[in-house]
Amino acid sequence: MRVLGVDPGLTRCGIAVVDGAAGRRVTAVAVDVIRTPVDDSLAVRLLKVADGVEDWLDRHKPDVVAIERVFSQHNVRTAMGTAQAAGVVALAAARRGLPVEFHTPSEVKAAVTGSGRADKAQVTTMVTRLLGLATAPKPADAADALALAICHLWRAPVRNRLAEAEARAAELARKHRARLAAARKTQA
Amino acid sequence: MRVLGVDPGLTRCGIAVVDGAAGRRVTAVAVDVIRTPVDDSLAVRLLKVADGVEDWLDRHKPDVVAIERVFSQHNVRTAMGTAQAAGVVALAAARRGLPVEFHTPSEVKAAVTGSGRADKAQVTTMVTRLLGLATAPKPADAADALALAICHLWRAPVRNRLAEAEARAAELARKHRARLAAARKTQA
Repeated sequence: MRVLGVDPGLTRCGIAVVDGAAGRRVTAVAVDVIRTPVDDSLAVRLLKVADGVEDWLDRHKPDVVAIERVFSQHNVRTAMGTAQAAGVVALAAARRGLPVEFHTPSEVKAAVTGSGRADKAQVTTMVTRLLGLATAPKPADAADALALAICHLWRAPVRNRLAEAEARAAELARKHRARLAAARKTQA
Repeated sequence: MRVLGVDPGLTRCGIAVVDGAAGRRVTAVAVDVIRTPVDDSLAVRLLKVADGVEDWLDRHKPDVVAIERVFSQHNVRTAMGTAQAAGVVALAAARRGLPVEFHTPSEVKAAVTGSGRADKAQVTTMVTRLLGLATAPKPADAADALALAICHLWRAPVRNRLAEAEARAAELARKHRARLAAARKTQA
C-alpha cells in the first residue's frame, strides 16, 4: 500500500509518500515541503498548497491520503490556516475518490516512537531509522509527513480489526432482534 | 458589481449572490443553503461544499467572493470544520482568479444594522428590508450570506479609499527619501 502523508500548513506543508504494509518494512518514496509566501493572500496560499498536492497525487498515485488532525493551537490564526490547508488537501483526495484518514499528533508519535508525548527530535530519529535513511529528513514538517504515513500503514490493520469486530457485533444484534420479532409473531 | 457571499459551514453553508455598488441599491440575485450529511466523511463533505460553490460560480459569474472570517468558537471541532469549508470556498475562487475577501461577523452586522453586536433577528430584518424582499430569507445562514455580500459592496469603497491614502503616503515617503539621498549626494 502506498500512503501520501501530509503535515498541513501554509508556511510549510510537509508531504511524503511511503510504501509498506502492516508489520512490514516501510520505504520512503519521496518527501518534501510545500512552501507558500507569507505575503500572498490566504486564497492564493491555499491554491498553491492545493496545486502542490495535486501534483504529488499525479506523480505518485497513492492508495490513501493521511493528514495530521489539527487541534486548537496557542495561536488561533495559525490553527485556522493549518485547518484550511488540511481542508484543501482532503478535498484534492476526495476529488480523486481516494480515502482520507486523519491522525492526531499523539497517534503519530506513538506509532513511530512508542510514546504519544515524544519530542520532534525523537520522531525524526525514529523516522530516519525505520525508513533506513542515510540522513535525517529536514525540516521537522518533512519528518512529520513521513511519520504520518508510517502511522497510517501500521495503524490501519488495528482500525480494520476494530471495524470488523463492530460489524460482527452489529450483525449479531440484528439477528437477535430478528429472532425476537419472529418469537413475538409466533406468540401473537 | 456582483458579489458571491458565503457563510461557511459543513452542516449548512449559506450562499448568496447580490448585485450593487457603494451607496447604491442592492439586489438579491439568488440565495440558498448548501447542506452536507453529518454521516459523510469530512473529505466528502468538503467536496460537496466545493462542488456546490463551483456550481454557483459557474451559474452566477460573480466579480468577487466574500467569505465570513471564522473565529475560534466555543466548539473547537465545529470551528475547524467551518474553517475548512471556508478554505475550500476560497480555493474555488482562487482557481478562477477571483478576488476573495474575508469579513468578520461584527463587520457584517455593523454594515447592515449599524451595530457590530446586533442579533440574528435584527440582521435578518435589515437584510429583508435592504434587499426589498417579500419574505425574510431562511435559515439564518442564508440571511448571513446575503448580509455578507451587502457588507462587501458597502465596505469596498471605504477599503479602497484607505488603500489609496496608504499608497499616496508611501509615494510621498518614497519621494522624500529620494530627495534626502539627492541632497546627501550633492553635499558629498
